[in-house]
Amino acid sequence: MEREELCDDAIELEQLVSQMKELMVEHVNDSRKPGALVLDYKSPKELKQVMDLELGYDGVGVVGLMPLIQDILKYSVNTWHPGFLDKLYAGTNPVGIISEMLISLLNANSHVYHVSPALTMIENTVSHSLAKLLGMGEKSGGITCPGGSFSNQLAMITARTCMFPEIKTKGYHAFGKKLLVFTSVAGHYSVEKTAIALGLGTDGVIKVPCDDQGRMRTDELERLIIKSFQRGELPFFINATAGTTVLGSFDPLREIGKIAKRYSLWFHVDGSWGGSLVFSEKHSHLIDGVNLADTLVLNPHKMLGAPLQCSFLLAKDKKIFSQSNSLKAEYLFHQEDDLGDGTVGCGRRPDAVKLFIGWKIYGIQGYQIRIEHAFKMVKYLTLIVKNNQRFKLVLDDPPSLQVCFWYLPIGINFDLENKKFRIMMTMITKEIHRKIMHRGKFLFDYSPLIIGDKELPCFFRIALNAPSINEKHLDDLVCEIEKMGEGILEWFEEFGDKINGDMKNGVNGNGCIDCANGHNIEKEVMNGFNR
Amino acid sequence: MEREELCDDAIELEQLVSQMKELMVEHVNDSRKPGALVLDYKSPKELKQVMDLELGYDGVGVVGLMPLIQDILKYSVNTWHPGFLDKLYAGTNPVGIISEMLISLLNANSHVYHVSPALTMIENTVSHSLAKLLGMGEKSGGITCPGGSFSNQLAMITARTCMFPEIKTKGYHAFGKKLLVFTSVAGHYSVEKTAIALGLGTDGVIKVPCDDQGRMRTDELERLIIKSFQRGELPFFINATAGTTVLGSFDPLREIGKIAKRYSLWFHVDGSWGGSLVFSEKHSHLIDGVNLADTLVLNPHKMLGAPLQCSFLLAKDKKIFSQSNSLKAEYLFHQEDDLGDGTVGCGRRPDAVKLFIGWKIYGIQGYQIRIEHAFKMVKYLTLIVKNNQRFKLVLDDPPSLQVCFWYLPIGINFDLENKKFRIMMTMITKEIHRKIMHRGKFLFDYSPLIIGDKELPCFFRIALNAPSINEKHLDDLVCEIEKMGEGILEWFEEFGDKINGDMKNGVNGNGCIDCANGHNIEKEVMNGFNR
Repeated sequence: MEREELCDDAIELEQLVSQMKELMVEHVNDSRKPGALVLDYKSPKELKQVMDLELGYDGVGVVGLMPLIQDILKYSVNTWHPGFLDKLYAGTNPVGIISEMLISLLNANSHVYHVSPALTMIENTVSHSLAKLLGMGEKSGGITCPGGSFSNQLAMITARTCMFPEIKTKGYHAFGKKLLVFTSVAGHYSVEKTAIALGLGTDGVIKVPCDDQGRMRTDELERLIIKSFQRGELPFFINATAGTTVLGSFDPLREIGKIAKRYSLWFHVDGSWGGSLVFSEKHSHLIDGVNLADTLVLNPHKMLGAPLQCSFLLAKDKKIFSQSNSLKAEYLFHQEDDLGDGTVGCGRRPDAVKLFIGWKIYGIQGYQIRIEHAFKMVKYLTLIVKNNQRFKLVLDDPPSLQVCFWYLPIGINFDLENKKFRIMMTMITKEIHRKIMHRGKFLFDYSPLIIGDKELPCFFRIALNAPSINEKHLDDLVCEIEKMGEGILEWFEEFGDKINGDMKNGVNGNGCIDCANGHNIEKEVMNGFNR
Repeated sequence: MEREELCDDAIELEQLVSQMKELMVEHVNDSRKPGALVLDYKSPKELKQVMDLELGYDGVGVVGLMPLIQDILKYSVNTWHPGFLDKLYAGTNPVGIISEMLISLLNANSHVYHVSPALTMIENTVSHSLAKLLGMGEKSGGITCPGGSFSNQLAMITARTCMFPEIKTKGYHAFGKKLLVFTSVAGHYSVEKTAIALGLGTDGVIKVPCDDQGRMRTDELERLIIKSFQRGELPFFINATAGTTVLGSFDPLREIGKIAKRYSLWFHVDGSWGGSLVFSEKHSHLIDGVNLADTLVLNPHKMLGAPLQCSFLLAKDKKIFSQSNSLKAEYLFHQEDDLGDGTVGCGRRPDAVKLFIGWKIYGIQGYQIRIEHAFKMVKYLTLIVKNNQRFKLVLDDPPSLQVCFWYLPIGINFDLENKKFRIMMTMITKEIHRKIMHRGKFLFDYSPLIIGDKELPCFFRIALNAPSINEKHLDDLVCEIEKMGEGILEWFEEFGDKINGDMKNGVNGNGCIDCANGHNIEKEVMNGFNR
């Protein structure tokens, strides 16, 4: 196309996208170079000094755009780096980038059909295809929400309205009974945040204990449901987790589904993380029973590499969303057209298009290959950790794509019964984590946990999701942790006890991140853990 | 950079972004060509036939990506087209596109500082700068939410927890009083949806009448608050709207703020639309009193052209978000670092970066120019509509960027007292709207409304926001409506009465969109109107 033919916006767009392309290619390519950093860590205070964050009356004009972008890239985490093992999402891929470019070009709102015809059709189609793949039947389908927490929230709101429609008009004021929600102690904190939002309060959430593999105990679930009924309360919603945040454990969905049916409770599956296993023939058995769900959340932005956010809320009967959440009378419904009506929001980003495009390009087969590569990496890392005396696995056989373990200093016995040992392990984990983050070759997270009847001190959680990860990276990772572990016992003997003592007295005395949590494992576990 | 040096992902990214750039430039340029269509309208049924929506086991591979993108573009609305006057957002701009490319490249989650250091700093800074510009003081600031509805929701949740912290733990069960929320009849429906979500029910929302300019009547507000207290209820939250969805009216914020203070209620301002006027010296008087707000929503994706979504929830005291919504004990707070803690969600898209980049590039000055151009266009369209006998303005002096009017067939008296006239106007408005949408030169919306004590039949709402709109487009728009209005009286006499009769009997007999609403104005108004 000749330049002269183009309108001003098109000319500007062409120039800026060309420049941006260079930066993007460089950013991605840099992430794979030997010695590349995943993050050049700076504290908030340091960052305030080096970044130009001033906002004023005069603009710098488009000539200032690329330097600004370069600055933001410089002080951000490079999620394309194979050392980014911190969260259940990883970097996206070129196809994901293009789908986001399409969304921004369209700048469309998928709330009403007539302003987003193609995107509405796509959302309906991909939701239905996904739900069918999960075995949820011909009437199944759903909508996207801006993240798993909002999907869980909409599920609980929809369930409540389906079961107790009078609450939609009259509120709880005229409702005599105390509503209860059940989730495991390892379930995501969004269930609790939703219960607060909905006015059930944290008291309205019953946390069911887990077994020693981090799975909800169904005997306990049933016992707690019966007890609630006996107290005159009204249990209505069970949240089962398919792939917990920390360990990646799978609640026994089929059994929980049966219990839900037995007591006429809503059966919701939070498959934000593990739901995507439906794309893998080899691993989909882990979510056996998922087809029994009344509602289910699945986030392709996690295991499938779609760009953030991409979260689906699916239902056996897709009509429940508009029927429950619309403010219109039923005879005014526009059938399947206007998706916004089925949500608690108004404007909506057409996130479904990201899975649609990914699925079209990669197919189920492509996603399967991605998932199987990740499991292979889990197997490899588990093996090298298991065979190394400096490490102790939390679960010998990780159920999903997280490998969790402690670093064990030389000459120390692994003894979870010993409180001092637990405190030491938490502090050592955090200190090694801090050092590794500051070096910037790897970025991963840590967490404490209650499992079975045991309180576990903080351990490393390595999330292996990105297709760019190979065995070499994992060898390097283990070396890096070992290296940072050298001398850690001496560090603990010199400073650890003191820091812990100070913590008890409420003094936050050093630069160690999040130290205050050390002695308060139970509280932290109850609060959940971000993904 | 030499091709050989690049990693596979970088090579693929370079190729795909280059191809996408061509499509993007063409899409934007096409939108400005004479005779270009904003939409080639197809019904859901037609679209199902022409689009390839099949999802299966095999992927088509990246070679299939650009044809897929072309297909989606073809059947979507082109929001860059100056004829897109349908919603309170318009197309974005090249700078907006680049900011979305950056977000997708980073694929970062701004919930925790250590995985999004630069983005967290940016969100804190731009929120504080925006709140300060609004006069909310030194301690002010906030966070982004995925759209105005979620911002309104988080405001109400936060207000409730600040005022009645026991509800957070115990829920409503142990709470004796009926909580009430106040908003005007013209306020956005998300206030009602939020009240439902929170368990207040629709009964918990008191709709305050508006004056004849669509503004909340403060005498009525005060009367209704006093009455609620007398009934033993507990009013706690006032939602004032700065720029209503349909007419663009501004509730008298200063007066409402005083009433809120007098009765110790939370003062929330939904400035999703009109809050951006703070960037215009000439028009910011319309939001006088906004600085009194306890919380306020402002969506730069509307009046400032940032890409969807970009919505800020601001507070006088920014700490209230983490203090109210965290599940952690207070002594564990990470100061300002971890933004996710202050929300009801977990993963978050770093939407703040879009306003940050726009503000840096354009400055307050650039946004001011944009806003003032839009007001100029409103003045122009108002003038030509006022001087044309075929039209009747809803408000002679539109308060904001929406121009609302009816088409009046020759020989018909404008008589809102006459029920048959009202039905006719609604049907004529919808039929002209349908014809114009099918022709595809323009896309705009229509709505009924209750204003003062009058029920208004459906009228056109023309939202003039995009900087690409000029006088010529508005002349064309008026011509197009006039042209489609020719013969409409004959159409109504032949079909209109019949359609209306069928509607009454519950039969939806023709292709007219949304016909069933015609005789049910009040219901539809109560349900609100999407933005």
